Amino acid sequence: MQGFTQPLFSVDSVLFTVVDGRLKVLMVKRAQSPYEGLWALPGGYVDVAQDVNTEATANRKLKDKTGIEPTYLEQFKAYSGHERDPRGFSVTLAYFALIGYQDAQSQIATVEQAQWLDVASLASVSIAFDHRQIITDAQQRLVQKALYSMLPVYCLPAQFTIGQLKDVIETLIGRPIQRKSLIRRIESADMLEELDEMAITGKRQAKLYRVKAGAEVHHFQRNLEG
Amino acid sequence: MQGFTQPLFSVDSVLFTVVDGRLKVLMVKRAQSPYEGLWALPGGYVDVAQDVNTEATANRKLKDKTGIEPTYLEQFKAYSGHERDPRGFSVTLAYFALIGYQDAQSQIATVEQAQWLDVASLASVSIAFDHRQIITDAQQRLVQKALYSMLPVYCLPAQFTIGQLKDVIETLIGRPIQRKSLIRRIESADMLEELDEMAITGKRQAKLYRVKAGAEVHHFQRNLEG
Repeated sequence: MQGFTQPLFSVDSVLFTVVDGRLKVLMVKRAQSPYEGLWALPGGYVDVAQDVNTEATANRKLKDKTGIEPTYLEQFKAYSGHERDPRGFSVTLAYFALIGYQDAQSQIATVEQAQWLDVASLASVSIAFDHRQIITDAQQRLVQKALYSMLPVYCLPAQFTIGQLKDVIETLIGRPIQRKSLIRRIESADMLEELDEMAITGKRQAKLYRVKAGAEVHHFQRNLEG
Repeated sequence: MQGFTQPLFSVDSVLFTVVDGRLKVLMVKRAQSPYEGLWALPGGYVDVAQDVNTEATANRKLKDKTGIEPTYLEQFKAYSGHERDPRGFSVTLAYFALIGYQDAQSQIATVEQAQWLDVASLASVSIAFDHRQIITDAQQRLVQKALYSMLPVYCLPAQFTIGQLKDVIETLIGRPIQRKSLIRRIESADMLEELDEMAITGKRQAKLYRVKAGAEVHHFQRNLEG
């Protein structure tokens, strides 16, 4: 049935987190050609014997190459052509993923070749394939989602304060937001629940929240600054 | 480098048009197994010798199988898994496309196996693979785009009246819209230009418009009914 060459097909994930006011992306140093020694997104080929679909491939490759199981993963965009891989015409299906930094660090510990790179400093880093473009596109998507949805909660630990959520959103969009706009959005999204425990920092207490089980990411018509 | 089976990779296009108040999708009757004799989206495999990327594959397959060159085409979503094709694990990258009915008819004329099917009547049609799901998803995307952008202009002929645009949008979203909301949107989108000619129907005259060269599809924050 197939008397011709099929394109190389792979899956890559752009996994973001936020730590200390910096947006980070998870990269893996390539151990082999092509682009040996350069940084690449964690990904790889489908294993048709064990993957039920490409989302399973994305999760399996993340786990194998970095130890991490993201808290959020969605299909993002496919990239294709002759130029992106010296081995020939290739297609990669990119996924967009998020995780809280602490959760990630507890999972990543033993994996040497995986590292969080600072997105703002990628210009000085050598990156394989067209992964720089994929990261740029995914970051744009993340900023849009931060303005129009509560998606950034998946960059936080399981329990978090409003202050932490505000910090993450401000890091993503690069501008300060109003606390009262954020609280209005939290109420209208009906995605978070308040916990009984409080977070205590020095003498200050703050309410702790978590994402409700089975919560969906609602898309707001107005952006957070509107 | 690849000691294992690669998934089958294909590209499929969901090409919509609107005619006489009905949303139509272009389907092709399959001439061979699997699903011989059932209706399928026009698509197929990448030809790595001639396609520069998967968008080129989508356009080439549409042209080969239906004669049509769409006025609008965008990448939509990938579908994957073991279940969707009896030949094994497969991935299809679905594209979402639009064309005006008259333009399509002048191109499609000689292609026997391609046909416009009424989207509202697909329940009674036998459809191959998971293409029914892909059409449902693409229709949802089209309705969203009709509410939040001027995208439906690509379902019209090159020159059209406000009345024709209003009809197309109402068909897509399934509800009447206000002419003045539409005119406000047209002005704010800055995507159309008025022509010198007028459309004449009986004794009535109406201004003709066309899409400006290089126009981009702006996403509005508010929906057309808001």
